[in-house]
Amino acid sequence: MIHPDRLFPSDSHARRIARELYASIVDLPIVSPHGHTQAGWFAHNEPFPNPAKLFVQPDHYVYRMLYSQGVSLDALEIGVPEIKNPREVWRIFARHYYLFRGTPTRMWLDYEFQELFGLTERFSEQTADFYYDVIDEKLRSPEFLPRALFEKFRIEVLATTDSPLDSLADHQAIRDSGWGGRIIPTFRPDPVVDPDFAGFHDNIRRLGELTGEDTGTWNGYLRALEKSRARFKALGATATDHGHPTAQTADLSPAAAAELFAKILGPNADAVSQELFRAQMLTEMARMSVEDGLVMQLHPGSSRNHNRKIFEKYGRDTGADIPMATDYVHALKPLLGLYGNEPGFRMILFTLDESTYSRELAPLAGHYPCLRLGPPWWFHDSPEGMLRFREMATETAGFYNTVGFNDDTRAFLSIPARHDVARRTDCAYLARLVAEHRLDQDEAFAVARDLTYNLVRQAYRL
Amino acid sequence: MIHPDRLFPSDSHARRIARELYASIVDLPIVSPHGHTQAGWFAHNEPFPNPAKLFVQPDHYVYRMLYSQGVSLDALEIGVPEIKNPREVWRIFARHYYLFRGTPTRMWLDYEFQELFGLTERFSEQTADFYYDVIDEKLRSPEFLPRALFEKFRIEVLATTDSPLDSLADHQAIRDSGWGGRIIPTFRPDPVVDPDFAGFHDNIRRLGELTGEDTGTWNGYLRALEKSRARFKALGATATDHGHPTAQTADLSPAAAAELFAKILGPNADAVSQELFRAQMLTEMARMSVEDGLVMQLHPGSSRNHNRKIFEKYGRDTGADIPMATDYVHALKPLLGLYGNEPGFRMILFTLDESTYSRELAPLAGHYPCLRLGPPWWFHDSPEGMLRFREMATETAGFYNTVGFNDDTRAFLSIPARHDVARRTDCAYLARLVAEHRLDQDEAFAVARDLTYNLVRQAYRL
Amino acid sequence: MIHPDRLFPSDSHARRIARELYASIVDLPIVSPHGHTQAGWFAHNEPFPNPAKLFVQPDHYVYRMLYSQGVSLDALEIGVPEIKNPREVWRIFARHYYLFRGTPTRMWLDYEFQELFGLTERFSEQTADFYYDVIDEKLRSPEFLPRALFEKFRIEVLATTDSPLDSLADHQAIRDSGWGGRIIPTFRPDPVVDPDFAGFHDNIRRLGELTGEDTGTWNGYLRALEKSRARFKALGATATDHGHPTAQTADLSPAAAAELFAKILGPNADAVSQELFRAQMLTEMARMSVEDGLVMQLHPGSSRNHNRKIFEKYGRDTGADIPMATDYVHALKPLLGLYGNEPGFRMILFTLDESTYSRELAPLAGHYPCLRLGPPWWFHDSPEGMLRFREMATETAGFYNTVGFNDDTRAFLSIPARHDVARRTDCAYLARLVAEHRLDQDEAFAVARDLTYNLVRQAYRL
Repeated sequence: MIHPDRLFPSDSHARRIARELYASIVDLPIVSPHGHTQAGWFAHNEPFPNPAKLFVQPDHYVYRMLYSQGVSLDALEIGVPEIKNPREVWRIFARHYYLFRGTPTRMWLDYEFQELFGLTERFSEQTADFYYDVIDEKLRSPEFLPRALFEKFRIEVLATTDSPLDSLADHQAIRDSGWGGRIIPTFRPDPVVDPDFAGFHDNIRRLGELTGEDTGTWNGYLRALEKSRARFKALGATATDHGHPTAQTADLSPAAAAELFAKILGPNADAVSQELFRAQMLTEMARMSVEDGLVMQLHPGSSRNHNRKIFEKYGRDTGADIPMATDYVHALKPLLGLYGNEPGFRMILFTLDESTYSRELAPLAGHYPCLRLGPPWWFHDSPEGMLRFREMATETAGFYNTVGFNDDTRAFLSIPARHDVARRTDCAYLARLVAEHRLDQDEAFAVARDLTYNLVRQAYRL
Repeated sequence: MIHPDRLFPSDSHARRIARELYASIVDLPIVSPHGHTQAGWFAHNEPFPNPAKLFVQPDHYVYRMLYSQGVSLDALEIGVPEIKNPREVWRIFARHYYLFRGTPTRMWLDYEFQELFGLTERFSEQTADFYYDVIDEKLRSPEFLPRALFEKFRIEVLATTDSPLDSLADHQAIRDSGWGGRIIPTFRPDPVVDPDFAGFHDNIRRLGELTGEDTGTWNGYLRALEKSRARFKALGATATDHGHPTAQTADLSPAAAAELFAKILGPNADAVSQELFRAQMLTEMARMSVEDGLVMQLHPGSSRNHNRKIFEKYGRDTGADIPMATDYVHALKPLLGLYGNEPGFRMILFTLDESTYSRELAPLAGHYPCLRLGPPWWFHDSPEGMLRFREMATETAGFYNTVGFNDDTRAFLSIPARHDVARRTDCAYLARLVAEHRLDQDEAFAVARDLTYNLVRQAYRL
Repeated sequence: MIHPDRLFPSDSHARRIARELYASIVDLPIVSPHGHTQAGWFAHNEPFPNPAKLFVQPDHYVYRMLYSQGVSLDALEIGVPEIKNPREVWRIFARHYYLFRGTPTRMWLDYEFQELFGLTERFSEQTADFYYDVIDEKLRSPEFLPRALFEKFRIEVLATTDSPLDSLADHQAIRDSGWGGRIIPTFRPDPVVDPDFAGFHDNIRRLGELTGEDTGTWNGYLRALEKSRARFKALGATATDHGHPTAQTADLSPAAAAELFAKILGPNADAVSQELFRAQMLTEMARMSVEDGLVMQLHPGSSRNHNRKIFEKYGRDTGADIPMATDYVHALKPLLGLYGNEPGFRMILFTLDESTYSRELAPLAGHYPCLRLGPPWWFHDSPEGMLRFREMATETAGFYNTVGFNDDTRAFLSIPARHDVARRTDCAYLARLVAEHRLDQDEAFAVARDLTYNLVRQAYRL
């Protein structure tokens, strides 16, 4: 079902090179510095649920496509705590599997079906029940428990993404358990720095309670954030993450910032002051990163919950986020003017707007010592997306201002599949450079290893 | 002159796959759901005019390029009703044919010259007169009458584009003639919904006369549009088309919309209210589509008549339209918030801004059930343009949120050539996926057939 | 170290075609119509300095990348008049040479090292001293004097870029010397038309002194510019060049322009009036070009000196310029409305925003007779950048609305290397078209010659 040469160039000369490069890195461990798996899985080590609950319900890549072709989210039982008819959901999925032709979702799933579950006949309406039964049974076996899979996948380190309001009890439990898997949190403060976030005011209050600071004042609020970061760091965090609508930063005086904070907490906060607050908070986060060494990740440019009716009925993250044009060159200038040349500061930039790769991101990362380019994100985490990224960024930023791969996934079982696509695509790109005599073969082997393993560890200080 | 393997990958392995895929779809009939041919040709079935009048005067792809290199539009007799020296115009064209190297215009013309007229030596200054004589003679033969060509081209259905002010008499005449060719109108209301359109106020008045409604009132105006749509539908129309400068939509209350309409009809309409009116009218058209089932097409993002002097002397559509950056994610939100989840509603999006393929259009179409992506349009209706479209859209939207090919042409004789380029390019793309083991070969055959034939019929409800 | 087939397609069939095309143009002379070499080198014909001073200090492509990876500009002795430890700077460069893998800088340098200095083992920490010694020695030999290299490189014409405040004494000296090398100035008026330029007011005053005009008045200022242009033309200039932040143009009445000029010279000039002044000055320059026939080049879209601290410490052009999104379609309309159809007027457009190639630039150049597209610029002067340009521009604008290659370099020794990359990449692109039967082979030979030699001479009136 999956071919050993998949994603390699068709031309036989370049393909041979790609094969050799891939063979040299295929056995390297997985480093996963940014994702959305749950620490609880590894803390409790309970079996993953049935196939529908595992493969359909949490994966917006999957049900987004089905919804776009007229399958109702109710039929897929999206948003319900327990799936009543998992086999029926699974059959709907199978019937529409042809929709994923040519997509990375298809490649990831075929990999998982074959490599994890030993299924070799294509998933379809005809094979739906067979798939269901095989997967359902395997999920209940000891080899498919979360920790066993973590080890089987040879994951060296796995980062989750967590709110400052999270107790991190699951992370603590993993540490206390004596199990050797390295699972670390990432500090994602959106709930307490983005005034548009649901429950923002409550969140600020709870942040105060958790840290013992008076978050009704600007200074208390900043101290609360610093304390939160320290708490994450103590449990192994090496990075923060910021999911803002834009990349806008600001450079307000302390007095102006305090005044803005008061306005944000009050009844007169408008959209302009909210955006300015988010902008100033990115700069504050950068300052704290300069101080505590946490690597800063910025994920801007998504218009969240674009489909109002779906959002109202099914809530956040149900597949209606749409990218938008994103400016970095003006937006980042205030922050970079303050900290852009600071030794030890590191900021990893992501984008959903591919037109910025060659126009803004590669030139910025090819100059500022603090900046690195994150891998192609979300809609662009795909073979073509990765090739465009390499083709548009490498000639200005080189390989060494990039940071390897992020799987960025909620779907734990897809992690090896996603890393495999990234490794193969990088090897295909490098093979083309070698075949066209733009890179020497011995250097290509070194770069392949760096892209797979070394750069991510260095970039994230792992 | 034209090679049987043209547009297929150079690599022999991928080329072999492309050939097989193409062989499996080459004989499928042509479905042409969007274009600018004239129903009158088929109503009257008179011979097409001389080569200059047929190939140069109506084709802005052709004279645009000649003008860009210093050939005057007067020398080409653009804009005159009768060409005085067609042979001289033809010779100028021949002398500059080298300018079209590497363009789709060249590919289309070579195909027409060879496949329709049996010309096999390259068009040039040397062969200009020979070409003229051969073409001129053939055009007067019965096999080159419009209906004969329609049948020879094996066109299953051909849609024209028509104003609500058009009597559709030619369409009626075709029906009345008993001839079996299926030629249907498309409802293009720009002249009566775009306040910038030449003669807008007169057009509104005439719309009232044609429909027996008082188009001086908002409700009468809407009823007039609904009646017009019904008239088009009765003659076979399945779609509407909208050529707005932006994709902006609006969600005004009925009272606000009525007030805006009054302002638009009055002496104080400014650019802002005109844009808002166009925006509201897209939303009204969507509502009507929900009700009457006509498929809505949106073609935004062209700065029309950019060259003022050319526009003043030669009028609309003389080659001085230039694309501009286009936003969809914010612009479409009001309309999609109302009708985006409506069963049975269908909206096909086109763009002249390729940066939106992966950033906005594929994510939108990969979520909203009403949305489909139109093929690469106008300047992007070309081999590279089509490859970029597939590479940038497929991984997020899949194949099944696209709608096959539109030839979008005024040049009837180019229709088979244009469909041939599209079919070959899709096969080349699919062959690459197969050769790189990203799609199974049996699936590629199914997709090739869907892209060529099934998707367009489903998308346009033909 | 450099392979004879570098940059050619990997597929053997296309590679064979690329080889033949390249062989047919490899011996054509170099025409360099736009660059930043110094006329003084050829006036004085003194040896180039040591390797560090020659290869590192003036090349922002080089130290930009080093700085992005934490090498301090002080360690590289950037911005100092004399390098104290050139060998140490050289060793730092060597140690970080791996950073350039996959970049054009690496291709250019390897070419120079091998083809000019006979070095065949890769540059690295191990070979740093050997390289230094070999290069240092050769630089002091007669064959490495500027005029000898100019002849060895077979440069037919080389244009520098010069301020209206420059005496052009070096250009005069070259002429007076009797040496036959054709080196011509280019009129770059940014220092006297951009109010943001350092010393703008002084510059205006000096312009008055140099021309004997009262540059305190609008008419005197315009006459001064006209006289300056005439002075450049007398020394062989055929072109002007304009490095504006945006492509904005304006069409003010003479009275409004005079008023704006007075405001710009006064104490109340704000950012809006400064931008409007630059816009109006582009239009004035176009008018003068219509009159004196100088070809106008526009290089917009760079956010200069983005890194404030680096700018304050090391000055202009130290690697902190970042591209930004650029509009042409609206920005150029005022100028094109006046002069866009003027016979004899020529304007060459460059961009740092690749999304404009297919969206705006190719459609504009494929219509307006005055417009031509400059080659990929700066960050896009690279194999992938050139391929994207051809793939995105050719199908709409053809080959004949482009102008060949600009090396645009401060690094004289890199000129043959840069032209070689451009020639090879064009041949690779043409070979693909031939291999895919999109262009006949005999035509590809003609186009290769045009792209390399004929178009640049015609476009720049050389």
